[in-house]
Amino acid sequence: MSRIAYVNGLYVPFESAAVHVEDRGYQFADGVYEVIAVHKGRMVDADPHFDRLWRSLAELSIDPAMSREALAHVLLETLRRNRLREGILYLQMTRGVAKRDHGFPKEPRTALVITARRGGRPSPKGMEDGVEVLMVPDIRWDRCNIKSVSLLPNVLAKQAAREGGAFEAWQVDKDGFVTEGSSTNAWIVDGDGNLVTRQLESAILSGIIRLVLQDLAASAGIKVIERAFTADEARDASEAFLTSTTSFVLPVVRIDGEPIGDGLPGPVTKKLRELYDGHFEGRGRNSP
Amino acid sequence: MSRIAYVNGLYVPFESAAVHVEDRGYQFADGVYEVIAVHKGRMVDADPHFDRLWRSLAELSIDPAMSREALAHVLLETLRRNRLREGILYLQMTRGVAKRDHGFPKEPRTALVITARRGGRPSPKGMEDGVEVLMVPDIRWDRCNIKSVSLLPNVLAKQAAREGGAFEAWQVDKDGFVTEGSSTNAWIVDGDGNLVTRQLESAILSGIIRLVLQDLAASAGIKVIERAFTADEARDASEAFLTSTTSFVLPVVRIDGEPIGDGLPGPVTKKLRELYDGHFEGRGRNSP
Repeated sequence: MSRIAYVNGLYVPFESAAVHVEDRGYQFADGVYEVIAVHKGRMVDADPHFDRLWRSLAELSIDPAMSREALAHVLLETLRRNRLREGILYLQMTRGVAKRDHGFPKEPRTALVITARRGGRPSPKGMEDGVEVLMVPDIRWDRCNIKSVSLLPNVLAKQAAREGGAFEAWQVDKDGFVTEGSSTNAWIVDGDGNLVTRQLESAILSGIIRLVLQDLAASAGIKVIERAFTADEARDASEAFLTSTTSFVLPVVRIDGEPIGDGLPGPVTKKLRELYDGHFEGRGRNSP
Repeated sequence: MSRIAYVNGLYVPFESAAVHVEDRGYQFADGVYEVIAVHKGRMVDADPHFDRLWRSLAELSIDPAMSREALAHVLLETLRRNRLREGILYLQMTRGVAKRDHGFPKEPRTALVITARRGGRPSPKGMEDGVEVLMVPDIRWDRCNIKSVSLLPNVLAKQAAREGGAFEAWQVDKDGFVTEGSSTNAWIVDGDGNLVTRQLESAILSGIIRLVLQDLAASAGIKVIERAFTADEARDASEAFLTSTTSFVLPVVRIDGEPIGDGLPGPVTKKLRELYDGHFEGRGRNSP
């Protein structure tokens, strides 16, 4: 069966899904996006994804392409037309097509593109083996709390990680503190068994798994401390892990080639992954 | 006559000029661009534009879509098909279409889009009246020397200027020094009649007019000092101006609502504009 994409009101074959060369997403990175997991034919945690999307749009003064209800409908229709039960939905809204000029167009018409991709949960092997992380300088702009498509620095960070044989890059700010991964949030477990992850501010994106995990941890009696931690602190942590919509909870067992703790996934990380798996199985919260 | 665009090997009507939704320019801002002025049917200063384009591509490890010679040919052919004598050429190269993933694709195929737009020189009114500039914090990433399409912060800066009634925003770094405009380079004239503009480094783009003007100034016996200047220094300067491919040399007569000097375009700025006009009339250097 061929894939179907949604592009500005039309459901089209994926191969011919295209946007105009003067779409501001293409010329200015003037747009935002979300990646939503799909399980058993339903979106996982759609509501917090929608909340974040609306926040990103508001930060950039981009009008939503449609209401939340209409967007949920179109996303589900895209699933249906792709007969997708397990995988991800990608959606992007930009400030639309306009004669090239840096400032906002006078009458912007927000563009919306949605694609669906088949795929299962993260492989259990990642959970058994853990992954390596490389520390790189955070060279991004000052508004990383906006989920924009201005992702070039993230691309370069991810590529640096891969070329260094690692799965992900953790970006380190000018004061030596870890901000987040190139497409994931960063966590450590401190000596007291508490979770530590950076507080929400303009230097990091409010990850949906990051959000969900705070509640899951609390329900299991695991304390979460929101504060910045240094790269050195991460190297000396008893456990470390990363979270994202596609990676779930993934143990980090090496940083820059050196093992974290005994170099194996730790018990707190395993517990959190189990909790998240259960949450995912129930399709998260408020999911159309 | 309808406009023609070049898209990945084909000359197509501008209205239908499109790229795939998984072009990395659209999803990751993973691409670079140039804007080249056209005068009397020829490109102005094509060589330095090409030099800069090749530098930007190299910084991002993007393979050029074709040789310089072939690119020059395609640009001229685009002019010809548009019967364009006066205006601008816009060209964008991205890391091409690939299944969405932050890291570089294994077999990237660089995409190339070219559009042409009719237009004359900047209106003489701007030169007579000058323009206003607004100072805004520079919130961009650390590699502004790369002419990437990751332009969202520039979009926000330009929009802030317009909403404040100004023509351009001058971005100010964390130490209080002006970096550059959202789409222009920033210059002041100091008390001794010397030109001051920020030195080349990762905080600014090497503007082509900036480059050309240094030679033109030298030939006229005007000294150019490459150093960072503060926002306060700019406010107290005897003259200020900005440069870009589409603005040429444009006097800045107000900053944040306050006049520079007597609030009128100054003699050094006028002289430089005359020199640049002459350079442009001769179609710049090395222009196919």
